[in-house]
Amino acid sequence: MSHDALLTDLYQLTMLQGYRRRDMRDGAVFEFFVRRLPENRRFLVAAGLEQALDYLEALAFDADDLAWLRASGRFEPAFVEALADFHFSGDVDAMPEGTPFFANEPVLRVSAPLPEAQFVESRLINLLHLQTLVASKAVRCVLAAPGRQLVDFGMRRAHGAEAAIYAARAAYLAGFTGSATVAAAIRFAIPVFGTMAHSFIQAHPSEAEAFVDFALSQPDNVVLLIDTYDSVDGARAVVRVAPELARQGIRIKAVRIDSGDLREVSQKVRAILDAGGLHQTGIFCSGNLDEYSVARLLAAGAPIDGFGIGTHLTTSNDVPSLDCVYKLQEYAGVPRRKRSPGKATWPGRKQVWRRFAADGTPLGDTVTLANAPGPAGATPLLEPVMRGGRRLAPSPPLAQLRATLLQQLERLPEALRSAVGETGYPVEIAAPLRALAEQVEGRQALAR
Amino acid sequence: MSHDALLTDLYQLTMLQGYRRRDMRDGAVFEFFVRRLPENRRFLVAAGLEQALDYLEALAFDADDLAWLRASGRFEPAFVEALADFHFSGDVDAMPEGTPFFANEPVLRVSAPLPEAQFVESRLINLLHLQTLVASKAVRCVLAAPGRQLVDFGMRRAHGAEAAIYAARAAYLAGFTGSATVAAAIRFAIPVFGTMAHSFIQAHPSEAEAFVDFALSQPDNVVLLIDTYDSVDGARAVVRVAPELARQGIRIKAVRIDSGDLREVSQKVRAILDAGGLHQTGIFCSGNLDEYSVARLLAAGAPIDGFGIGTHLTTSNDVPSLDCVYKLQEYAGVPRRKRSPGKATWPGRKQVWRRFAADGTPLGDTVTLANAPGPAGATPLLEPVMRGGRRLAPSPPLAQLRATLLQQLERLPEALRSAVGETGYPVEIAAPLRALAEQVEGRQALAR
Repeated sequence: MSHDALLTDLYQLTMLQGYRRRDMRDGAVFEFFVRRLPENRRFLVAAGLEQALDYLEALAFDADDLAWLRASGRFEPAFVEALADFHFSGDVDAMPEGTPFFANEPVLRVSAPLPEAQFVESRLINLLHLQTLVASKAVRCVLAAPGRQLVDFGMRRAHGAEAAIYAARAAYLAGFTGSATVAAAIRFAIPVFGTMAHSFIQAHPSEAEAFVDFALSQPDNVVLLIDTYDSVDGARAVVRVAPELARQGIRIKAVRIDSGDLREVSQKVRAILDAGGLHQTGIFCSGNLDEYSVARLLAAGAPIDGFGIGTHLTTSNDVPSLDCVYKLQEYAGVPRRKRSPGKATWPGRKQVWRRFAADGTPLGDTVTLANAPGPAGATPLLEPVMRGGRRLAPSPPLAQLRATLLQQLERLPEALRSAVGETGYPVEIAAPLRALAEQVEGRQALAR
Repeated sequence: MSHDALLTDLYQLTMLQGYRRRDMRDGAVFEFFVRRLPENRRFLVAAGLEQALDYLEALAFDADDLAWLRASGRFEPAFVEALADFHFSGDVDAMPEGTPFFANEPVLRVSAPLPEAQFVESRLINLLHLQTLVASKAVRCVLAAPGRQLVDFGMRRAHGAEAAIYAARAAYLAGFTGSATVAAAIRFAIPVFGTMAHSFIQAHPSEAEAFVDFALSQPDNVVLLIDTYDSVDGARAVVRVAPELARQGIRIKAVRIDSGDLREVSQKVRAILDAGGLHQTGIFCSGNLDEYSVARLLAAGAPIDGFGIGTHLTTSNDVPSLDCVYKLQEYAGVPRRKRSPGKATWPGRKQVWRRFAADGTPLGDTVTLANAPGPAGATPLLEPVMRGGRRLAPSPPLAQLRATLLQQLERLPEALRSAVGETGYPVEIAAPLRALAEQVEGRQALAR
């Protein structure tokens, strides 16, 4: 009763019935891309491919799906019966997860009989959008907090269960240290972090008793939340309980501050901890943080060793959606182009080439036709990942994708590292693609 | 292997182990509320209660969960074994779904032994936040488009599967006509809508042929997308194919425009349709719409009969998160108060009372202690919904909640109806609650 295949827009089904009527099942090419970079994103990070391929491999209508379709009265019985055998038999080429990319660059290309390539649109966009959105937000936090611990705290205000779990994955892929979300940690082998809530402190007769209780219960992971009543008083309480805990062999790993002027409070708390001999006790901050506030705090010299980033990460709060689409580029061997105002597309089956300096710094991209040659020495970014509906290889481990992205971040041009300002990164639309666009335009004008 | 119970923050588990160590399982009261209304929300709409109660009733750790917890090495074996019997045995009082509410008003109150009331925090917030967020966005669209059809088109850019499905539910609850998302329609008996994508037009040799094909395949639901190449040309093509379709008994219900200056284009298209005798063919618009653009279009006299609202609805794009929390208000019969800067809470077990004029217009709210009397003639908004871990009654049908909300919208004061500006709606914190807050403050200061 999960109706996984029917997590789709109704129009995919009405279109499939239309295609069937005229037996339109020649090969179609669709590409997933982002039309425009949002104002506050210098680049985006491709993510979600593993889940997209899982979806394509598993796609099938079960008996419940077919029963609902039959009972709906919206479809011809023969069409519904044919769906019993429907599955995805096509090819996918895609950028590896963790690849930085730009507007108008295809991130994923599907080549399949028209009904199959069409039907998967809604869920493919849904899966690729979410993780790309969050990875592209997370990487900005990573760039803003070099050498600091970054933990995803955002499950509670993520948009539902899947958003929470995939956001944790996307954030880790993009360089986060880990997540507080247990289910995500289990599913994707992400390091998991967690301490206590204010309610734990409030339920105890006093803050100091809560600290001792927690430390005795979790001696290997003592991070104490000190802002329930007043962070400075809380830090003093930590210093007071530390000697007794030390006698029992328990070290206070860190304190957490979740409110107030974090620059000022972290400096006061650092001074109190140091004066109390707790030089090894770190300061971890949270509370409505994002890449902008993290960068400001560190620029102001706040002595903060790690950050919990919550809602702003998992909802990508400043940019909660990308203008991403999945568009028909070719059908039955003929390139297609949509011309709607503000939404025109580049036709045909495409490839993206990236040029690198000798030290690995990316210099610029070229978008051209898949069968046209790329610039000399450039690297093609879309790779074959699925043929005939089956993966060519298991998806790479998440930790490996993360390591590759972190390496790429080290070589990122300065203009792309900064949180604001113009990108300045050149993305060229190559001559063969421009020529094809003009030619398709002429042909389509004649057909109308 | 779904690990539903472990869709939580790790700290819930570390706290539970801490509570167990000291046998802290007296009764606790937590309340879910929103600390501040976002700038562009005059009021919020409570939603997600049905899913929250489902979660509480089903909460249990399965063998896989326990195996992971054991293997993690983070927890005492006896604690993990005890979790095998963990379930929710508490009480819930809540505002009915569809109730308009304001900042600092408890929407849902949990009373349960401390570990149970504590543990459910993360997922309860996750469930209540999402639907409340989307219902509160959707109701603004409903107010902006009186008498127009409104359809949720936002599955593809919703944040994952659950976001898509619950957004469809929340939008329908808040007065939308229906959704394009098939799985949501099935699960919640929401009316489902859908036509065709641009790719359907592009895959055909000409727009006119695509229109005829679609109409013959879906004769009862002919809505034709006319903006793939040029909306005015598209409207002319509709007029050209209409007579032949009419001869076969097929009526063109509507055209859809998905791009361009919708005011100007809809007027031109209306004129073309009317000149072609298609007075009964409606105009349905979509394309990056929200309550602001819908209101502007209708104020400018655009002849639009319905709107598809997508990304802006399902991500609540202008306000993608609410400052909602679930806070300990009482433990072991003693009221508690968090004092963190900017995050102080009102202590104790509370009730919200709403005063109404004779015609049903809400006049103002009072937040007071649950055991204090409410203002004369006022109605308490929080109702008992669960006792001893079991629902008191089945959740009301969604269509009934929707009808109740639509009735309330008719009586909404003008200041709350408008999309922008000050609320002006009075929410009073009653004297008994203020007195308790001062008293708790004094006690807590002594305890530190």
